[in-house]
Amino acid sequence: MKTVDFYFDYSSTNSYFAAFMLPEICRKHDAKVNWLPIHSAALFRGTGFDVMAMTPRKARYLWRDHQRYGEFTGLPFRKPSRFPMKTAAALRATLMVASLAGKTPDDYTAPIMADFTHAVMRAYWERDEDISDPKILHALARSVGVDGDGLIAASASDDARARLASVTERAIARGVFGLPMFFVGEEMFWGKDRLDYVERWLMRP
Amino acid sequence: MKTVDFYFDYSSTNSYFAAFMLPEICRKHDAKVNWLPIHSAALFRGTGFDVMAMTPRKARYLWRDHQRYGEFTGLPFRKPSRFPMKTAAALRATLMVASLAGKTPDDYTAPIMADFTHAVMRAYWERDEDISDPKILHALARSVGVDGDGLIAASASDDARARLASVTERAIARGVFGLPMFFVGEEMFWGKDRLDYVERWLMRP
Repeated sequence: MKTVDFYFDYSSTNSYFAAFMLPEICRKHDAKVNWLPIHSAALFRGTGFDVMAMTPRKARYLWRDHQRYGEFTGLPFRKPSRFPMKTAAALRATLMVASLAGKTPDDYTAPIMADFTHAVMRAYWERDEDISDPKILHALARSVGVDGDGLIAASASDDARARLASVTERAIARGVFGLPMFFVGEEMFWGKDRLDYVERWLMRP
Repeated sequence: MKTVDFYFDYSSTNSYFAAFMLPEICRKHDAKVNWLPIHSAALFRGTGFDVMAMTPRKARYLWRDHQRYGEFTGLPFRKPSRFPMKTAAALRATLMVASLAGKTPDDYTAPIMADFTHAVMRAYWERDEDISDPKILHALARSVGVDGDGLIAASASDDARARLASVTERAIARGVFGLPMFFVGEEMFWGKDRLDYVERWLMRP
């Protein structure tokens, strides 16, 4: 079974769209999604690149573009009132949710990964919730059948921090410079606008 | 007949792809392309945005992405040995080519606009020619049936400079912040990856 490595951050609008579109593509081609949350700020550290360098003209356009994209995909995207958003706690929780659900801790392809990632994405990008708030993360854990107290405690652990650092370092070593990023084998694709290429690569023998 | 305003610069790889893909879409929907060459450097002046702020990782990826895109579209894209490229003379020549061909000077939808733009794009992005060289521009003019000496002289005129300034100022006033940019009416679309949205807008009643 083929696997698509999917690097994302909850602060990335395009990661939100991809989180729902990629599983559809993988289902069609009998492939698995490997859910790899990383801290996008870490990607830009030391590169001289400022992710927030954005003119008002461009920012205005991008929100309009996301709105159109939501309309055409049918995803109920809504511009959040808090932007940017602190996502470290939610990212660490995502990396701990498999072990809390009794799955192999290092298997980021487990269905609970998709369920929890989708829950956090919908909270922020559809319902305008503050996903940096432990109470919100607690409720999201429960909504996917995971012990809320347990997940909050686990996501504050050294193990969670080490996992986030390790996934992020591996991403940088592979050449990741932005999000969402996808790998089919070692072929890298940047952005939801390259999901058609991800699909083409999955169809290769 | 609907019109798509197409803002481009010869230094933009994505403008190269769009210059060949957009006319196909317009043909299908009985629409015209309004060819609007602008100087991309002017878009970024004073905005604090540095178009060349690019990490080696990202630059490497983008060339790979363009190569894949060329393969799938069938366009014979080849990474040029000179990059970036000075494009002002070619842009001014493009704005003068209609009058040299005996067309209404301000009608940038004339077929000669497509022919000359395509000739310059192919020279730079397929055959690695130096399109800042007047001898090259001279030969490209002749290849589309336009007097080479006349076009070189016209593109150095005050009229040509005023045209380029005017098209660029109008673009900035409409909100253009990057290239290629498309307008259907006043709805703006950025990048070749939004040509499917341009098509959807052309299909609206």
